[in-house]
Amino acid sequence: MNLKRKGDNTVIFANPPVILSSYSVVGPMEGKGPLANTFDKIWADTIGGNKSWEVAEHKMLEEAMQGAINQSKVNTNEIDYMLAGDLTNQIISANFTARRLGLPFIGLYGACSTMALSMAVGSMLIDGQFARHVVTGVSSHHDTAERQYRNPTEQGGQRAMCAQWTVTGAGSLVLGQGGQGPRITAATIGRVIDYGDTDTNNMGSAMAPAVADTILKHMKDMNRTAADYDLIASGDLGSVGLNLAKELLKRSGLETKEEFTDCGVLVYDSSQDTHAGGSGCGCSAVVFAGDIMQKLKSGEYKRVLLVGSGALHSPTSALQGESVPSIGHAVCIEA
Amino acid sequence: MNLKRKGDNTVIFANPPVILSSYSVVGPMEGKGPLANTFDKIWADTIGGNKSWEVAEHKMLEEAMQGAINQSKVNTNEIDYMLAGDLTNQIISANFTARRLGLPFIGLYGACSTMALSMAVGSMLIDGQFARHVVTGVSSHHDTAERQYRNPTEQGGQRAMCAQWTVTGAGSLVLGQGGQGPRITAATIGRVIDYGDTDTNNMGSAMAPAVADTILKHMKDMNRTAADYDLIASGDLGSVGLNLAKELLKRSGLETKEEFTDCGVLVYDSSQDTHAGGSGCGCSAVVFAGDIMQKLKSGEYKRVLLVGSGALHSPTSALQGESVPSIGHAVCIEA
Repeated sequence: MNLKRKGDNTVIFANPPVILSSYSVVGPMEGKGPLANTFDKIWADTIGGNKSWEVAEHKMLEEAMQGAINQSKVNTNEIDYMLAGDLTNQIISANFTARRLGLPFIGLYGACSTMALSMAVGSMLIDGQFARHVVTGVSSHHDTAERQYRNPTEQGGQRAMCAQWTVTGAGSLVLGQGGQGPRITAATIGRVIDYGDTDTNNMGSAMAPAVADTILKHMKDMNRTAADYDLIASGDLGSVGLNLAKELLKRSGLETKEEFTDCGVLVYDSSQDTHAGGSGCGCSAVVFAGDIMQKLKSGEYKRVLLVGSGALHSPTSALQGESVPSIGHAVCIEA
Repeated sequence: MNLKRKGDNTVIFANPPVILSSYSVVGPMEGKGPLANTFDKIWADTIGGNKSWEVAEHKMLEEAMQGAINQSKVNTNEIDYMLAGDLTNQIISANFTARRLGLPFIGLYGACSTMALSMAVGSMLIDGQFARHVVTGVSSHHDTAERQYRNPTEQGGQRAMCAQWTVTGAGSLVLGQGGQGPRITAATIGRVIDYGDTDTNNMGSAMAPAVADTILKHMKDMNRTAADYDLIASGDLGSVGLNLAKELLKRSGLETKEEFTDCGVLVYDSSQDTHAGGSGCGCSAVVFAGDIMQKLKSGEYKRVLLVGSGALHSPTSALQGESVPSIGHAVCIEA
């Protein structure tokens, strides 16, 4: 039987799924950052009149997914699957959004790599002829993440300089079998890599080896170098992790220049006091759905590699002394 | 473009993926239940010499997935994806198992429906020609679930009679493009249904409408009745939810008889004091990987519908007063 694969780890789509629309919603801090004018909607505060940050997060995800559906002009009854996930325990943001949208729902968990994971799996479902359209979406919220993963938000503890700031934001894409828009041409699903790092305040370092591993596998499978991409965007290593990933790639013989950057580095300005940059499922989602999609549509980018990176620990596993298993999933998008 | 779909919600596989092997590992209580002789391995206690129940759970999942891989006789480098999930926050059981197995990893979350979800998505990846083989696996552990979802285990609070007992167990399957074994012929991914139930001690009731909805959609799409199946097994409604689902189906014109039962009802004996029966991702996983697979292979069952059911709340959402969004995913397996 034929296989739509190239090399050991990469899938090549026979009829590359089209990104018909994208929509991003962010909180006020992201809305004051350097990418402010690329987002579809900026909330004035992080709670949006809801009774909790958790409800605010799922409302934000709903808004993003409904926004992407509206912009795609696809009828909801022609969207065969919703693929979504987030950082909250039991991915409740995705679950409650699925309740509202009423679409057949596939729940995913890949921590901050979930956007890229949803694009990869969604593309396989379309190219495999199981769906006409899918809608993908992920979210994160600074305050839901802070109190779940770290400390009570009231505590206001000092953050490490290598720590990243969880983005309050949600991004969504509608993918289809045909139509106008950038196409997802290949995907490389990653393996869990764990160098034994136990510092959950430095997740960029923990994730860098997984991102480097997936990029190397992708380049080998596709017989390409970094120069074949206008942009390689990890999401989200932050500044500490990005430098480590560049160094790991260099030692493995893959030179990268400015084309390799990170969604967590792009989303905030250094004046915003976020330390190593942004993180959270929503970070790569809103940077991709906003800035990167605009540049793909304008022709500024011809070929982009989005490499979602996930730190797959939990607060429980960290307290029990386990290290941080990490993963990177890559999707290639071409204008 | 052709679509491998029938009706509004069901996918039909062009080359139905084969279940090449199955493996189940359970705890001591499940090992004393009516299905004891169908499991591949029974642990003598729930911790297995590990330092925590969480580590025990991921070791159990590792054992199940490695067991299924060994039994399939497929080389690990011909298994293109691992699909797995569990109930722990951030699905750490699946993540740490993925670290050990070293396979490209797709993390799923569907609460107790995750086994059926992994079979549906895994089958799409194989039939879509993206993978030669996939290994799927899910786990649950009574004690990790109890302290995460309910109360500190030391507390020993009295359980409601409608409550279910989380199964300590892990199940795994290897699916392939060809070979000998039962085949997955169709899949119906469910939508989130929520009747407003807020009692997390009665998840069977909350999930029954979602299971009924998916069964009705599947039967309509396939133009079949319950009598066309030797077994329709939900997983896991327990005895309370099963009766409600039967009643909902009856009111919608679908009569079911003894062929419709529930993995949570099957896994324990009424003398085992589990109240409404078993639950947890591991429940439908070990009942399917054990008892049901044996009967499919012996020819006792010709056609089975496994309907994974998931309660998609979290402890946080429940404490915030939200109801329990629920889902059912169906996969049709034929000998």
